[in-house]
Amino acid sequence: MPIIEARTAVSPPPRAPAAPLRFAMNHPPPLPAALPGLREAERPQRPPARAVWLTGLSGAGKTTLAHALEASLQRDGLRACVLDGDRLRAGLSSDLGFSDADRAESIRRAAHVARLFVDAGMVAIVALISPFRAERAAARALFAPGDFIEVYVNVPLAVAEERDPKGLYRRARSGALPRFTGIDSPYEPPEAPVLELRTDVLPVAECVERLRARLGLLP
Amino acid sequence: MPIIEARTAVSPPPRAPAAPLRFAMNHPPPLPAALPGLREAERPQRPPARAVWLTGLSGAGKTTLAHALEASLQRDGLRACVLDGDRLRAGLSSDLGFSDADRAESIRRAAHVARLFVDAGMVAIVALISPFRAERAAARALFAPGDFIEVYVNVPLAVAEERDPKGLYRRARSGALPRFTGIDSPYEPPEAPVLELRTDVLPVAECVERLRARLGLLP
Repeated sequence: MPIIEARTAVSPPPRAPAAPLRFAMNHPPPLPAALPGLREAERPQRPPARAVWLTGLSGAGKTTLAHALEASLQRDGLRACVLDGDRLRAGLSSDLGFSDADRAESIRRAAHVARLFVDAGMVAIVALISPFRAERAAARALFAPGDFIEVYVNVPLAVAEERDPKGLYRRARSGALPRFTGIDSPYEPPEAPVLELRTDVLPVAECVERLRARLGLLP
Repeated sequence: MPIIEARTAVSPPPRAPAAPLRFAMNHPPPLPAALPGLREAERPQRPPARAVWLTGLSGAGKTTLAHALEASLQRDGLRACVLDGDRLRAGLSSDLGFSDADRAESIRRAAHVARLFVDAGMVAIVALISPFRAERAAARALFAPGDFIEVYVNVPLAVAEERDPKGLYRRARSGALPRFTGIDSPYEPPEAPVLELRTDVLPVAECVERLRARLGLLP
């Protein structure tokens, strides 16, 4: 019966039972790959992941937008989390001040944490003033092309200062908060952001819709 | 018709249409709570999350165990990720050396990152030698009781040194790697770990089963 013979011929040979995995003696366990490209092959069902990097003045609406986007993505079953300046400053970066060097280090750490979240299959929504182009470029360099979505959350300084949700502009104008971005420290706008959102013109929901459209995560 | 009247009486008044959410002018957006207790109310379907902290000598099997546990939990649909020393040293903590102060800072950062992952609903599996009790205690203090699972991955030094998967013991014995834990820097075993695993006695699968049983995440 040739058909059965043919079937037999293409059947895989019986496999020897796999030896139980044991801790390495002479054969070390495979190390996880260093950045970048971490263990992608082990995650065949890896959910869509991105770093969404919201940059802009204090009071521009970054944190509001970050939480609205997080909630929107979570409602659709995506894994998203917010990493914002206040939260990082309260924990991971609580040892840092506000000198240029410390701000750069704070941004570097945030970028690495975002990368860890992306590797874990999350959408990491980073909300940081991150005023300097060089530091945003260094953050971007940690990610595969297309995995780092730079979003310029833009309002005129006068609007941000009028909002002043934490009273920081008032303190900066009084001299109590030196080197405050927009007052006596520069903000370098992105030259080619993936998206620019004027939060003084658009309502939050519209900003979230534009973000979702540019993420390319959802149908 | 009294029944209908009663129904009418308990009906909620028609609600005015909700105003669209806009960026704050005078009313600032609610800030995310600082550590601890972050926005729990916003995550009614928050998946089970823990920090599993694997401590032990280099070569004890922490990273092997971490990846096996991660894979096991992911197969059951849980969100898990590994934070190990090599990976953190390649990225977030690449600015740190191996002085006592730098090691402590490395552990502090790992603990804060694990906390961020737990807040995001993940099981964060941390694999770090973390030789000193004080630093592990500081890490534990970042978590709610029961969310930090300290696991002593224990092998005799002779076994770890024979495994020597990265050749570090050899370098340490030759003097090329000063202050190496177990050789010329102490390891302080946990006094009351949630779990102790002898990886020279138990196969990986049995260690993973014992870990899973102690996590309390799965039926």
